[in-house]
Amino acid sequence: MTKNKVLIYDTTLRDGTQGEQTNFSAEEKLRIAQRLDDVHFHYIEGGWPGSNPKDARFFEMAKNVKFKNSRLTAFGSTRRAHTKTESCPNLKALVKAGTSACAIVGKSWDLHVTDILKTDLNENLAMIAESVEYLKSMGKEVIFDAEHFFDGYKNNSRYTAKVVKTAFAAGADFIVLCDTNGGSLPHEICTIVKRISAHLPLEKMAIHAHNDGGLAVANSLAAVQKGVVMVQGTINGYGERCGNADLISVIANLQLKLGKKCLPPEAIRQLTNLSHYVSDVANVPPLNSRPFVGRSAFAHKGGVHVSGIVKNSVAYEHIQPELVGNHRRVLVSDLSGKSNVEYKAKELGIDLAKNDAVSKKIVHEVKLMEDRGFQFDAADGSLSLLIKKAIGEFVAPFNLETFSVTTSRTENNPCLSQATIKISVAGEEELTAAEGNGPVNALDHALRKALTKFYPQIRDMHLVDFKVRTLEGSEGTGAGVRVLVDSTDGEEVWSTIGVSENIIEASWQALVDSIQYKLSKEENLNIR
Amino acid sequence: MTKNKVLIYDTTLRDGTQGEQTNFSAEEKLRIAQRLDDVHFHYIEGGWPGSNPKDARFFEMAKNVKFKNSRLTAFGSTRRAHTKTESCPNLKALVKAGTSACAIVGKSWDLHVTDILKTDLNENLAMIAESVEYLKSMGKEVIFDAEHFFDGYKNNSRYTAKVVKTAFAAGADFIVLCDTNGGSLPHEICTIVKRISAHLPLEKMAIHAHNDGGLAVANSLAAVQKGVVMVQGTINGYGERCGNADLISVIANLQLKLGKKCLPPEAIRQLTNLSHYVSDVANVPPLNSRPFVGRSAFAHKGGVHVSGIVKNSVAYEHIQPELVGNHRRVLVSDLSGKSNVEYKAKELGIDLAKNDAVSKKIVHEVKLMEDRGFQFDAADGSLSLLIKKAIGEFVAPFNLETFSVTTSRTENNPCLSQATIKISVAGEEELTAAEGNGPVNALDHALRKALTKFYPQIRDMHLVDFKVRTLEGSEGTGAGVRVLVDSTDGEEVWSTIGVSENIIEASWQALVDSIQYKLSKEENLNIR
Repeated sequence: MTKNKVLIYDTTLRDGTQGEQTNFSAEEKLRIAQRLDDVHFHYIEGGWPGSNPKDARFFEMAKNVKFKNSRLTAFGSTRRAHTKTESCPNLKALVKAGTSACAIVGKSWDLHVTDILKTDLNENLAMIAESVEYLKSMGKEVIFDAEHFFDGYKNNSRYTAKVVKTAFAAGADFIVLCDTNGGSLPHEICTIVKRISAHLPLEKMAIHAHNDGGLAVANSLAAVQKGVVMVQGTINGYGERCGNADLISVIANLQLKLGKKCLPPEAIRQLTNLSHYVSDVANVPPLNSRPFVGRSAFAHKGGVHVSGIVKNSVAYEHIQPELVGNHRRVLVSDLSGKSNVEYKAKELGIDLAKNDAVSKKIVHEVKLMEDRGFQFDAADGSLSLLIKKAIGEFVAPFNLETFSVTTSRTENNPCLSQATIKISVAGEEELTAAEGNGPVNALDHALRKALTKFYPQIRDMHLVDFKVRTLEGSEGTGAGVRVLVDSTDGEEVWSTIGVSENIIEASWQALVDSIQYKLSKEENLNIR
Repeated sequence: MTKNKVLIYDTTLRDGTQGEQTNFSAEEKLRIAQRLDDVHFHYIEGGWPGSNPKDARFFEMAKNVKFKNSRLTAFGSTRRAHTKTESCPNLKALVKAGTSACAIVGKSWDLHVTDILKTDLNENLAMIAESVEYLKSMGKEVIFDAEHFFDGYKNNSRYTAKVVKTAFAAGADFIVLCDTNGGSLPHEICTIVKRISAHLPLEKMAIHAHNDGGLAVANSLAAVQKGVVMVQGTINGYGERCGNADLISVIANLQLKLGKKCLPPEAIRQLTNLSHYVSDVANVPPLNSRPFVGRSAFAHKGGVHVSGIVKNSVAYEHIQPELVGNHRRVLVSDLSGKSNVEYKAKELGIDLAKNDAVSKKIVHEVKLMEDRGFQFDAADGSLSLLIKKAIGEFVAPFNLETFSVTTSRTENNPCLSQATIKISVAGEEELTAAEGNGPVNALDHALRKALTKFYPQIRDMHLVDFKVRTLEGSEGTGAGVRVLVDSTDGEEVWSTIGVSENIIEASWQALVDSIQYKLSKEENLNIR
């Protein structure tokens, strides 16, 4: 392996889903895996095919996907005590997953062997050796996760060393030193990695740290600094209890601070996007204070700093935000508001810099709306409509006369949703009705059906995502809601937003903005 | 100072408020300060009286409060360049704050002196020396914050060393080594602390770390392990950009792992409460995954693990949760096995351990439902209904005959939602209608209205939270949705769940589960 290279092993899709809030469908897992492949992660642990039908389905679907840069890995455990390796359903499921690499976890803390597995220490060694040998005989690359390695080593270093030597002797390609309970400290990691390297080659060792002491990133770095060549972790540190090592921070520190080679530099610049993408799919709000990639990570408040940053950014930033795909934010109330709006307008080909009064008016309106729960940084489509309206470059393509959407159900039948809508375009009325598998879906169908007569280009666009967030947690079903809709016409993706106490009203606003944005892109088709 | 003692210096009220989300009134600051006093923090930095009227008011109010254990500290900067110390308004404000201890920040990175302050290196030394001497002459304990100490040392170790030696020679009681930009790594902290200790006594040194590399806790521990005697940080790591060192994790690691003495053991048991209290006052939702004190910090999900925990908790927990005032939680989900379900049932007063077939049946059903998007670790109410149904201890309190909910709108009027519902209880039918500010709210009102006649105790309960997430992001408004509802009757809070393509159907399921859970709590009121 190239000197200074560190292999990145992602387990967001397996260990990451042990987190309380994190739950992915098989389809979502596949999309994340493809994204990780795009940024050149070396290994992607997809799941535990022997433990649940979802993961088995994921590996079936993955067989039809070509990974360009990453090696997909299936996870499982060693065979059970006193059973035959060949007939172990868990190992069979691993082989059936069809990946070229397999990870298996085995006990390396004597307490776990005797008190949890209730078997004897030698049988545990046999389970490990035979399971590794079996998978090697099936042509797999084998990654052995030594569960509770550090706690085991602290309690009975001799037995723990024996476990990893056994796995290595059986042919394991990598031995993963796991701090499963997440309570180890960096100096302990250093000492133990150093000691175990008397028995095992460092270029076969990996680190897997949990964050129970708030030290998972530090522990991962410490192990690499002692010579370990692979880091396991998850995007955003998702995982059970306090999470796993956050690979985002691990990679950024290794590559930008310690001069290690993990990913190509263009992939490092994707880290911010990657972090936000995974938190979007998990529907866990991104942590603003997340190191390197958080929205606040390079946000500067207060007068002293801001003037300093303008003078010399290295004086106030530990790295250039652009290296990880992030950007600096200067939090100076009105001024920054105006320049943001001007920046956004420029993207739309509108020069607001000359028109101070209009800029101020837009900033004022944005602030009022954001105070009500709108969020324009997540809704570029709605923001550009707002700007066009403010400068008088917008003419409504249609008027709503009335809509009504009904969802009904009888005892044992599924819900039915139907919408009727009446709109008018340049004085001409159109009344239609449509069904959908929910009230918003029905309304969306009815609106498009009514509009297609006037604007056939609407057929080219469709909704790709629909997100709902309640704004205040304290009012039950009466809480305000924010609806975000992502739409595409195959060329561009745009986001629009609606906010209301009524989810149908909020959805309607976002749907209308989405269609208006599409139509306003083609100026000459607007009816003026 | 006693051997092994580490002083805790809290700056939540000053540096913590630089965070984007954190904003305290003077009254809130005072309440937090009293709470920190209760848990025996050694120093509480209350604010910067020279920088804003709120902080000045805080110190005025604090004069009427007696702190039993903590020393209140006022923060400011050294005098300006080429001005007289005695006439510096900033230093005057410090003295006026009336605290026995003052912290002053000075530049220790030559780049900042020349490029930001635009003064010369010797004048900076004079500013530091004279400011420290002035405050000492006023009888203050003086804490000198060497801003950008580590970055300065990396770039010009000679000048940076000169700065801290100057402050010490002028009489500073503590010299705080600040990693202001938060980009240093633990091994750098170790090396630099060791080197600087050739010039300064370790028992006069403190560490102040920021978290831009995700390493603030590790850096604080590293400095203490090299001999530094004081740690500065904030509760929950609040602070600018990625925050400061989280004192919660620092204290727990120092005291429970490294054998240091920071606080009395009974104060350590207050850490979970303290963390939640400060996040409540800040109105920032507590981070579930926060090490030691988060709601998930001792939550166990995977089936393998849970059977282990029941057998032997030390095998799966890095510390006893009670030591920091936290507690263990067992979650049931698609990754879980029989023992999770049995543990959960036991909480409900049901012993499933004897009935293996029923346990397996429940686990199987949970897995199937979670594959469809249910998530039972977040919905204890629905899970207990599922268990009661499986063991035959549940009788439906009502039957739905039919419901219909309509939302309509005309051009310039707000949306109106109305629901009609027909239910039957023991053969008696009830038909009602209700309005709401959204379709789910209307349905909720109609259902309660219909049921109150039969079950008046429903009046005691109400919904406290309503969450919607789309399950798959790729199908627009036709995507599946998961609805989570939190309800309370004043005594207990429970969560229920519904999943469907239709948001009304999913909401209906969660609403019905919520009411059924409430009614099933009072067995004798069920109609059997």
